[in-house]
Amino acid sequence: MAIRIFITGGTFDKEYNMLNGQLYFKDTHLHELLEKGRNLVPVEIRTLMMIDSLKMTAEDRDLIAYQCEQCEEEQIVITHGTDTMDKTAKVLAEKVKNKTVVITGAMIPIKFGSSDGLFNLGSALAFAQTLPRVFM
Amino acid sequence: MAIRIFITGGTFDKEYNMLNGQLYFKDTHLHELLEKGRNLVPVEIRTLMMIDSLKMTAEDRDLIAYQCEQCEEEQIVITHGTDTMDKTAKVLAEKVKNKTVVITGAMIPIKFGSSDGLFNLGSALAFAQTLPRVFM
Amino acid sequence: MAIRIFITGGTFDKEYNMLNGQLYFKDTHLHELLEKGRNLVPVEIRTLMMIDSLKMTAEDRDLIAYQCEQCEEEQIVITHGTDTMDKTAKVLAEKVKNKTVVITGAMIPIKFGSSDGLFNLGSALAFAQTLPRVFM
Amino acid sequence: MAIRIFITGGTFDKEYNMLNGQLYFKDTHLHELLEKGRNLVPVEIRTLMMIDSLKMTAEDRDLIAYQCEQCEEEQIVITHGTDTMDKTAKVLAEKVKNKTVVITGAMIPIKFGSSDGLFNLGSALAFAQTLPRVFM
Repeated sequence: MAIRIFITGGTFDKEYNMLNGQLYFKDTHLHELLEKGRNLVPVEIRTLMMIDSLKMTAEDRDLIAYQCEQCEEEQIVITHGTDTMDKTAKVLAEKVKNKTVVITGAMIPIKFGSSDGLFNLGSALAFAQTLPRVFM
Repeated sequence: MAIRIFITGGTFDKEYNMLNGQLYFKDTHLHELLEKGRNLVPVEIRTLMMIDSLKMTAEDRDLIAYQCEQCEEEQIVITHGTDTMDKTAKVLAEKVKNKTVVITGAMIPIKFGSSDGLFNLGSALAFAQTLPRVFM
Repeated sequence: MAIRIFITGGTFDKEYNMLNGQLYFKDTHLHELLEKGRNLVPVEIRTLMMIDSLKMTAEDRDLIAYQCEQCEEEQIVITHGTDTMDKTAKVLAEKVKNKTVVITGAMIPIKFGSSDGLFNLGSALAFAQTLPRVFM
Repeated sequence: MAIRIFITGGTFDKEYNMLNGQLYFKDTHLHELLEKGRNLVPVEIRTLMMIDSLKMTAEDRDLIAYQCEQCEEEQIVITHGTDTMDKTAKVLAEKVKNKTVVITGAMIPIKFGSSDGLFNLGSALAFAQTLPRVFM
């Protein structure tokens, strides 16, 4: 079965707006990263939101948990801002059963030459394939 | 305990010689990749050889197997050219017991902007941490 | 005689602060760009300020003009934020005589893979060598 | 009037073939470089050949000279391998009159992160606009 990838935004996907010099969200870079990494593992990608994780609400986290529960895949990777990754992890640990959920992100946007995102995504997909489902 | 990383060369570490237009080996790029990926997992790095895997001999493979057996670490990542990765894997599967050995490499040199190496290294380190030791 | 390069900041030299997600100034990237471009033209580099050009004051512009007048070199390249480049150009046109002054910058920071900075710097150094001194 | 750009190949446009590890020519990278540099100067691009300049024959150089003479543009940039750039320059200096011809290239392929090509192209386009036509 495929690995489910949920996109929520975060530094990972920030772009540079050259007109006002601000970082912002446009589209996810997941597809190009998977292509760059020559990923052959089947994945199903869905964008749930595109936000800075400092702006993530309790409702947003509930939505992520709900999507993890409802999807048929048992191995899930979530891209997420690093600032509140721990909060989302706590919600998911309480609500999602019998699935392997790996949250990943980046300290530096993909679009910067020095981004850690490609390394992190490689790790996350490997962990999702090998770590046990969490039971209760 | 740390993860042992053995470097053997391969596309991964090829550089461009701007004087004659050929690809060649100089130093490994492992350290900069680990820094870029903000790796915090303890690693011990040792360069065993710096060669194109098409030129790897049976003696070279025996040396790699010997180093895997002798090192005290139980989790090992080997960077290797992709052309004969399978041959080395076969030798290691026969000779190295009770250790997790992951062989990785790249289709495109690290020094090219489009390299898959950072993704592959992230995956390899994750697999080395989570896959079981191989028993006989 | 060498080309004088004055650095004033701008998008060109912005870095990504991975702790707070903001862009900021640290050091100039001029030296690495000149090395990348294999520049062999003698240059003298001096950092006058490291600011966003929206924050550049009349005093800052007078300082830049003064430095252009005082330096012994007759060919000058200034790196500058794009937002108020025209204002500085106007001040320099009024105050600096008998010198070729080229103002350059970037729409995207050097540290982004897609930056236009290397192209612009190459152009600026070429224009500084070939355009006539401005007389009054 | 536009600047004419003639493409002849060279290190500039070499790609990495990940199946055999060799460098080869596919398509030119001129268009993406001009876009990256946000070039607004009108250009007319034509690929004359895609070869390593060590393999360039006297007939090839005559062809380049003929194209420079025949095109209606008076400002010309030629991308060329660095190994025999001087030979082509000598042929063009003899045969092409009343035009500004700038030959440029790269020591490192564009596809490498550390390429000098973007800097060189920026310089070449600036020189083509400002250097005088060569008379006889």
